[in-house]
Amino acid sequence: MKRSILLLLLLFCAAQLVTAQSMQIQAIQYRPAASLYVEGKFMKTKKPYQRIDTASYPELPSAVKNLLTTSAGIVISFKTNSDLVAARWCVTKKKTGVNMTAIAYKGLDLYIRSAGKWQYAGAAGPTGDCSEAVLARNLGHTEKECLLYLPLYDEALSLEVGVLPGALLEPLGSQFRNRVLIYGSSIVHGASASRPGMAYPARLSRMTGINFFNMGLSGSAKMEKAAADLVASIPADAYILDCIPNPSPEQIRERSAYLISTLRTRQPGKPIIVMQSIIREKGYLDKEAGARVTAQNNEISRQVDSLLRSGIKDLYFIKADGLLGADHEATVDGTHPTDLGFDRMLSILRPRIMKILRKYPAFRQEK
Amino acid sequence: MKRSILLLLLLFCAAQLVTAQSMQIQAIQYRPAASLYVEGKFMKTKKPYQRIDTASYPELPSAVKNLLTTSAGIVISFKTNSDLVAARWCVTKKKTGVNMTAIAYKGLDLYIRSAGKWQYAGAAGPTGDCSEAVLARNLGHTEKECLLYLPLYDEALSLEVGVLPGALLEPLGSQFRNRVLIYGSSIVHGASASRPGMAYPARLSRMTGINFFNMGLSGSAKMEKAAADLVASIPADAYILDCIPNPSPEQIRERSAYLISTLRTRQPGKPIIVMQSIIREKGYLDKEAGARVTAQNNEISRQVDSLLRSGIKDLYFIKADGLLGADHEATVDGTHPTDLGFDRMLSILRPRIMKILRKYPAFRQEK
Repeated sequence: MKRSILLLLLLFCAAQLVTAQSMQIQAIQYRPAASLYVEGKFMKTKKPYQRIDTASYPELPSAVKNLLTTSAGIVISFKTNSDLVAARWCVTKKKTGVNMTAIAYKGLDLYIRSAGKWQYAGAAGPTGDCSEAVLARNLGHTEKECLLYLPLYDEALSLEVGVLPGALLEPLGSQFRNRVLIYGSSIVHGASASRPGMAYPARLSRMTGINFFNMGLSGSAKMEKAAADLVASIPADAYILDCIPNPSPEQIRERSAYLISTLRTRQPGKPIIVMQSIIREKGYLDKEAGARVTAQNNEISRQVDSLLRSGIKDLYFIKADGLLGADHEATVDGTHPTDLGFDRMLSILRPRIMKILRKYPAFRQEK
Repeated sequence: MKRSILLLLLLFCAAQLVTAQSMQIQAIQYRPAASLYVEGKFMKTKKPYQRIDTASYPELPSAVKNLLTTSAGIVISFKTNSDLVAARWCVTKKKTGVNMTAIAYKGLDLYIRSAGKWQYAGAAGPTGDCSEAVLARNLGHTEKECLLYLPLYDEALSLEVGVLPGALLEPLGSQFRNRVLIYGSSIVHGASASRPGMAYPARLSRMTGINFFNMGLSGSAKMEKAAADLVASIPADAYILDCIPNPSPEQIRERSAYLISTLRTRQPGKPIIVMQSIIREKGYLDKEAGARVTAQNNEISRQVDSLLRSGIKDLYFIKADGLLGADHEATVDGTHPTDLGFDRMLSILRPRIMKILRKYPAFRQEK
C-alpha cells in the first residue's frame, strides 16, 4: 500500500516536471526576425531573408538568381535579457549537399558578445521544412548582445526569434563598420563551413569588426556580364573577387577585364582585391583537376598583370600559394575547405587583406 | 546543306563522347572490399564491415550493440595500378545527423601513399541507400597503395572497390603497427569530422603509423559492466579511455574503478591512458552545461588519483585544458569538434600520447 502511494507520488512529480518543461517551450514569445536588425544584405528586398531582389536584375543567369535567394551571410542582431534564446524557422525542400552539415546548409548559428568578443553560443539544424529549437539556455538574465546567422545554402522563408515571456528583445543595430563585398564561388558562399557563422566572410567580420558581405554563388561565380554589372552597381568601400574557382580559363580570359574595369569605372578609388583560386587538394593526385586550377590561376594572373600595366589604379592581387597548408587535410571533398581549411586560409588572408584596406582612409578606424 | 551535315557530325561526336564516358563507368571492374585487406576491426565478424560480433556479447546494452554495427574506423587497404578508383556501397536507411556531413556519416574516403605519406585522394557521399562513385581519377598507371575509410556512423552493408578493366587490384596488408584501442564517446566515433578519414583515431594512425582502433560509441560510452568486460577482453598494446563526456558524474564515480581495474587485471603491463572530457564550447555561456563537464572531469580526476594512490601500475591521466584552443570556434554544435577542433586536439594529444607509449618496448619502433 505504502509502495503504491510512493509510486503515485513519483508519477505525479514526473508529470509536473514534464509539464513545467513543455510549458517553458510553449511560453516562449516569438518576434519576426525581420523586425529586429537585419545585416548582410546588399539592398532592401521583398523577401526579408534574401540578399538581393533578383527581379530588379532580369539579365542575371537563372542559376545566379536561384543562388541569390539563399540567406548566406545574413545575420540578425538583437539584444535580450532572456535566460534562453530560441528560434522558429522554415526553409525550402532542397536537400542538404553531401559535403555540408544540415546545420550549415539549413540551420541557424547564435553568437553572444562576451568580454568584448563575439562568442559561439549555440546552433541548430532543421527537423523538417519548419523547425523550432532552443539555441542556448542557462544564459542568466543580464542584457546580452546577440548575432544570429541564417542558413548558408537555403533560404529562410520565415524566421522568428524567441525569448522567455517578459524578457527584453530589441534590435541591436549594425555591429560592423564599412562594407566589403566578396564576390565568389561556393567557398565564399560557405561550403563547407560546419555552421553558418563559420563561413569565411562571417569569421573575417567577427575578427576585424569590418562588414564583409557574402556574395558567394556556389558554382556560378562565372563573371558573366550581368553579374559583373550587378557587382559594380553595389556600393561598397572595397571589393574582393574570389571567383576564380568557377569560370574556365577561357572565361577568365574573356570576362575578367570587363568585370574589373567596369567595377573600377563605377566605383572609383575603391580597392579591388583579386584572389587566385585555392589549390584543389584532389588536384595533387588527379593531374587533370590540378592542371585546371593552375590554368585558371595563371590566366587571372595574366589578366591582372595586363590591367596593372595598362595603368588601372587600386587593384591588388593575392596569390593562393599555401592558403590551405601543406598536409592536404583541409577540405571535405578535395575542393571545399572545412573549418580547418578556412582557419588556415584566414591566418594568411586576414593580414594581407587588412594591409591593403588600411591604406584607405575609410578603413583607418580599426581597433 | 553543308550546315546540316556539320550539325549531324557534331551530334554524332557528342553522342560518341557520352557513350565513351558511360562505357568507362560501366567497364569498371568491381571486387568485394572484404576480399582485400580489412583493418580496424577488433575481431573477425560475420558481417564484414562491423567492428565486433555483438552476438558474442549478449549482456551489452542495446544502444552499444547498435553503435557497434557502424563501420567507424574500418579501413580497406589495397594496391592498384588503375588510373581511376571507384566504389559501390550500400548503407542503412538511418538519417544523417544534422551536425555531420553525409560523406562522414555514410560515405567513403580514399587515401593514396605519396612520397611516403598517406595523402587525401577523394571522398564520396551517398546518392541513396546504394551508391556508386568514382573516388579519384587521372591518377596515372603506376602502382599505388591505397586506404579506403568506411562510413563513420552507418554500416557498410556491402562494399566493392572498382578499378579499370585489366588493372591490378590486390590486398595490401596491414599498414600500421601495434594496436591501441580507444574506447570513447561520439568524439572518438567521429562526430563531427568532415569525412571518415578525419576522425581523430584515423588521423592519429596516419600521423604515427600506429594502429589506433576506433571504439567510439556515440553517446553510449558509459562504462557499463558489460562494456568494461568487452574492452578488457580485447587484446591491445595500450588502451585509451576517452569516454568521460558520456557518463554522468555519478556513473563515473560508480563505474570507472571497475573498468580501469578490470582492464588492469586482464591486460597486465599494458598502458592505460584516461582522458578528461574536452570542454563543451557551449558550456562557456550555458552555465549548466559547463558545470556538468566540470563535475565529470573532477570526478574522473578523483577516481584516477585514488587508483594511483592504491598502487595501480601503468595508468596515465591526460587533462583536457586547452585541447580546443581559446576562441570557442572549434565545434559544430558546442560539443563535437570539427576538423579544426580535432586538429587542435591532436597537436596537444599526439605528443602526450606518444611520450607515454614510447616508455613501452612494444612502441619503440617509431620511425
